[in-house]
Amino acid sequence: MHDAETGSLARTPEPPYYAVVFTSLRTEDDAEGYGATAAEMERLAAQQPGYLGIESARADSGVGITVSYWVSPEAIRNWKQVAEHRLAQRMGREKWYRRYRIRVSRVERDYAWERPGEAPAS
Amino acid sequence: MHDAETGSLARTPEPPYYAVVFTSLRTEDDAEGYGATAAEMERLAAQQPGYLGIESARADSGVGITVSYWVSPEAIRNWKQVAEHRLAQRMGREKWYRRYRIRVSRVERDYAWERPGEAPAS
Repeated sequence: MHDAETGSLARTPEPPYYAVVFTSLRTEDDAEGYGATAAEMERLAAQQPGYLGIESARADSGVGITVSYWVSPEAIRNWKQVAEHRLAQRMGREKWYRRYRIRVSRVERDYAWERPGEAPAS
Repeated sequence: MHDAETGSLARTPEPPYYAVVFTSLRTEDDAEGYGATAAEMERLAAQQPGYLGIESARADSGVGITVSYWVSPEAIRNWKQVAEHRLAQRMGREKWYRRYRIRVSRVERDYAWERPGEAPAS
């Protein structure tokens, strides 16, 4: 249902960069349409200028968190305005979400750990 | 397995505030111990000075995202040093995680949407 990012963590550069934290609670409607659009939006986001990566998880409870990473606030604004993305946002409000919250933040430091012997992140 | 925050989104104040984005990939070991400790850490975090909220989701793929919100970088540093939390971090590296990444970020703006007629966030 998701794309190649599933099962991996985003490989982002040294901070600073920007993170959009999108947390949502799903309705129980249209799981198929939602999944297809979510995958398509991940694919499309990855083609935008300034895109650095994405991480996504949704629990059985219906809570989902998607974090996308960008080089600048301008790159985030541009992605927000892409036509297909605007359509997906509208469909989300009409069908898929009970509520959501979007937080735009500036990543100031990060730290990565990997189990010894673990294959490098894809 | 999780606490009362599960199924709800964090109610945070007006920005600026700080977000710790913890993304991880689980091993398949010790699901019970992991779940109990995760719930306990959420409970303990909520008692720390400067805590604003937490959101968490883990997908069947093993990818998990937990975002905790704090008033300041100092509050984040203090939580990192709490003894029980340090022990949980060590157990995470020994047993529960294949890899993880922690990003400390400053939330600059946010936007909330709620379906009309939806019950207020818990």
